[in-house]
Amino acid sequence: MIHTSPSYRTEIRTAMRGGDGDVRIEHLFEPGTELLAPTRMISRITLKPGCSIGFHRHEREEECFHLISGTAEADDDGRKVTLRAGDSILTGNGAGHAIRNIGSDDLILLAVIVRYPEAKQ
Amino acid sequence: MIHTSPSYRTEIRTAMRGGDGDVRIEHLFEPGTELLAPTRMISRITLKPGCSIGFHRHEREEECFHLISGTAEADDDGRKVTLRAGDSILTGNGAGHAIRNIGSDDLILLAVIVRYPEAKQ
Repeated sequence: MIHTSPSYRTEIRTAMRGGDGDVRIEHLFEPGTELLAPTRMISRITLKPGCSIGFHRHEREEECFHLISGTAEADDDGRKVTLRAGDSILTGNGAGHAIRNIGSDDLILLAVIVRYPEAKQ
Repeated sequence: MIHTSPSYRTEIRTAMRGGDGDVRIEHLFEPGTELLAPTRMISRITLKPGCSIGFHRHEREEECFHLISGTAEADDDGRKVTLRAGDSILTGNGAGHAIRNIGSDDLILLAVIVRYPEAKQ
């Protein structure tokens, strides 16, 4: 199944998780209908300079950000780090993260959230 | 958890799935130890011009390729398509795919494979 760039379902979120400015989220494929695995989101995210996603935690799931272009300051569960194109951050099992575009170009990243298996009864 | 670009575990596979040339796979995070979700692979893949991954099927799992840069010809379960930076292809539930770099620059893509939940007994 192919989705080409301009046809993605796109949403703009303002002050996402208490962050600054707008976050553009292009959903590559849709959970439940297109994605049959427990992938809750797979999207290409664009933050303009100064924009951010605020700190939030991931319980019973994990999210990977992979930086396609730009420069970010991330909060990796309490530790501040600088990330550049090609770097990745993984957050799950109750940990938290935040990310901010600290460069002068757009920050573009691939975000993938996958749920953990249900606990056995 | 942060992994920066030069520190990824990298493998080179030759004639992968019957394809041509070499495939460079940089594993962003490791299943089982770092990844707790049923993500079997999350990696940045580089194919030099003319290199390819041959046709293969995904059963009980699905793989998403998202093109970071370059131009590809993909086989999407029997249908030939041209993909460019920003495009994506999803293959799972028994379908198959192949991908070849048909451009003059490196083809770089993000690949994510997530397993389906186990069938209930």
